[in-house]
This record gives sequence, structure tokens and C-alpha cells, in this order.
Amino acid sequence: MQRYFVQPDAIADGRVTITGDDVKHIVRVMRMEAGEEVIVCDGLGRAFRVELTDLGDSSVEANIVEELAQSPEPAVKITLAQGLPKGDKMELIVQKGTEVGIARFLPVDMARCVVQYDAKKEAKRRERWQKIAKEAAEQAHRNLIPSIGEPMSFKQVMSSLDGFDLVVVPYEGEKARSLREVLADAPDARHICVLIGPEGGIADAEIETALSKGALPVTLGPRILRTETAGLVAATCIYYHYGEMGG
Amino acid sequence: MQRYFVQPDAIADGRVTITGDDVKHIVRVMRMEAGEEVIVCDGLGRAFRVELTDLGDSSVEANIVEELAQSPEPAVKITLAQGLPKGDKMELIVQKGTEVGIARFLPVDMARCVVQYDAKKEAKRRERWQKIAKEAAEQAHRNLIPSIGEPMSFKQVMSSLDGFDLVVVPYEGEKARSLREVLADAPDARHICVLIGPEGGIADAEIETALSKGALPVTLGPRILRTETAGLVAATCIYYHYGEMGG
Repeated sequence: MQRYFVQPDAIADGRVTITGDDVKHIVRVMRMEAGEEVIVCDGLGRAFRVELTDLGDSSVEANIVEELAQSPEPAVKITLAQGLPKGDKMELIVQKGTEVGIARFLPVDMARCVVQYDAKKEAKRRERWQKIAKEAAEQAHRNLIPSIGEPMSFKQVMSSLDGFDLVVVPYEGEKARSLREVLADAPDARHICVLIGPEGGIADAEIETALSKGALPVTLGPRILRTETAGLVAATCIYYHYGEMGG
Repeated sequence: MQRYFVQPDAIADGRVTITGDDVKHIVRVMRMEAGEEVIVCDGLGRAFRVELTDLGDSSVEANIVEELAQSPEPAVKITLAQGLPKGDKMELIVQKGTEVGIARFLPVDMARCVVQYDAKKEAKRRERWQKIAKEAAEQAHRNLIPSIGEPMSFKQVMSSLDGFDLVVVPYEGEKARSLREVLADAPDARHICVLIGPEGGIADAEIETALSKGALPVTLGPRILRTETAGLVAATCIYYHYGEMGG
């Protein structure tokens, strides 16, 4: 069934109001009519099966039939702190990471980032990443739209690690400590941060700082993954480990 | 250390001859000189540390210093049979799949493929995919260049499954059987085929045929992955399961 995200306050008294681009999608693309059903998510984790009642040009109204109990959201919440990559690679990272289940993306300005940080441009790009996350979440049948944080400095990320049960750093220089080892030692971890360096990797000084903050460098094996692949692969391993990939 | 693939017959009597685009890369891009070392792979799984001796415009000669014993190649060989996707998605699939360790790609013409199969065009595209595989294998520090099979029909794939210890089919319609369950039942599997449908998914009749050939539909969990993501994610789970992601 087709799935749409609405603002939480668009759901009230058993009714839902859908606005924005989704109206066009429902009316023009899907050519749906009153009486047909879709799934509406509040983007915070709740999902409802609803029956369309009024289809207009600028809004669609619907009645809630039932709240869906089973959530497709993983119990383990992963935040991907991603060293800002070149070009439009961050779009791929957000899209694929959203599909697999990542809860939050933090673009990080790191020592070896090639891109010059530009606050004005970043606001535009961040808007675009958020849109990609919404579309990917709809297509992946998720109940939650991953949030995209404001780009922050490595230092800022390092001072905000307290909330995580585990911070792992896939790192080419780490030859011994495996991701499996680290996860096996943390069977109850619920909030995990994965830190990925940009194309040039993580600088030695950054690894030192991360270590001092309790982050754990890990190897993902002998095959070297590109920056836009590493976070997706690490998240997939983590979800698989905790039984979040269907068992 | 920089890594280059050569034809197996370019390695003989303790010497290696590098030709083609890699010459330009060594001489012009990397500006290397005689006495410097690179790694040369024969693309079939062997790798050598070599010392450059003669750098010319059309070829580079080198002496073998030692054969590298440790292989980055997974012991579990995965073949990705991929329903031909739209546009240039197959390029992404080959690049990312090569990074993570896939051994072989088989483009498959399936019932719900949107692209019209065109033998002439396919030859060109296959050449391009093979080039992408080579470059990704070099960057990932692999010893083997994954092979790209000729596009084949679903029927042809179904009649060539005998060589596999396990054939898994990630499938939206499968709600019960998990990938983990299937892998746990096959601790000694060494050749695994992963079959992924195109954008529109796998047709019911195709699932029936696959089942009758011993393939196992599995769920990858409640989040629906796009066709270009599913193979990479399934392969990552399989490698993680068998300890091929660094432990």
C-alpha cells in the first residue's frame, strides 16, 4: 500500500490532512479516489491505515481506519556521522542509508574533507538531503524519516558522543579489532554512532581524539570500501548482528 | 601501496610487464620512478609486490619482490544474478558489489525488466561494467576482478544453478524465512547465488520456478530495498555471517 509522511499535527481526531507534493502524487500520479486506502506516517514512528474521503487540488482528507502495530523501524538506532564527501555522494549515502534503516545522518567537516564548507550552500544541500531521506523512507516502507543534522565540525561531533552506547569507527589502519567483537561485547546497545572518514580517510590526530572519547576503531575486513559505501555496509552488518534484517 | 591488474601472461620469469591505461597512471598521474614499488595482481587471485625497473611511454617493467600470501578475497564466493535495472543502475551495482567482495555478476532478463534487451548495446555496456569492476577491484585492494557474465534469460539462469551450494532470493513476498536461518543451515556453503529482481520485483511465476529449482526466497526484513541496494545488502549480510568482514 502507498505510504505518505505528514506532519504530526496533520493527524487529529481520527482524521488526517495530506498537503504538499503528496497531493499531486495521490490525485494525478496514482489517480486514487475516495474510498481507497493508503498508509500515513507521522515521521516520528507511528503509522496509520487511512481511507481517503475528500480529494482536492491542494489537500487530501482521510479517516483513520487503524493504527499499525508492527513497526519496520529497527530497535537499534544508528547515527551515521559522515565526513563530508565530494560531489553529490552524500545524496547516495542518505538514500541508501535510509533504505537500510539508519535513523540519523550527521555531515561532518573533517581534516581530509576536500569540499570547502559554505553555510549558505549547505542549507540548500541539507534541504535536498532531507527530501531524499523522505522519499527513500516512503519507498522503503519506513515509519520514520531520518533526520539530517546541520553540518558540524569534528570537534563538535566528539563532544556530543555521550548519548551513544557505542561509537564505532571503521578505519583502514585498524587491523585487529573487528566490528563483530565490538558488537558481541555490547549486546544491549540501542544507540550506536558510526563515524566514517571522507575520501582521504580519517587523520591520525582525529583517530587519537576519537579513541580518547571512547570511540572504537574497527576493521571491516581486507577489502577497502569507498567513503560512500562504508557507512551503508557497517550499518548493514550492525543490523544483521542484532537480528534487524528479518531475523 | 598502489595496485594494478595485469593479464596473467604478463607475469613470467620473475618479471611483470604493465601495459594499457595503467602505464599513464603510473608514469603521469602517480609520477613514479624506477626503484619504487607497487602491487600487481593477475586478476585470478594472485598478487605480487614488485619493484619498477623500466618506465616507458607504452609499458612499464618490474621485478617481482615477493608473492603476497594473504588474500583479501572472501572464501565464500557470491554470484549476484541481477534482474537488469533501468538506466545506469547496473554500474552502481557492479562498483559497490565489487568493493564488498562479490565474485561474479550475471545480468538477467526477467519478466518485469523495463529495459529492452539489445545484444549490440549490451556488448558495449558489458565492456563498461567490466572496466568499472576492474577499477573498483583495484581501489578495494582485491586480488580478483569480478567477471560480468553475458546477459542471459531467467530460464538460462535457472538451468545453471547446479554449481551453487545455496541460491537465495531476497523477496518482498517472503515473510517468514530469514537469510540468517538459511545461512545457519549451510555452514559449509562456498558458492552462493543471490538472485535479485528488477525494479518491479520478481514475478510470481519466476518465484515458482526458482522454488522448483531449489532456490530459497528469504526476507531481508521489513524495510523494502531498491533493486540496486538489495544485492549489496544481501552480500554484506552473507559475508558478515561467515566472518568475511574482518571477523
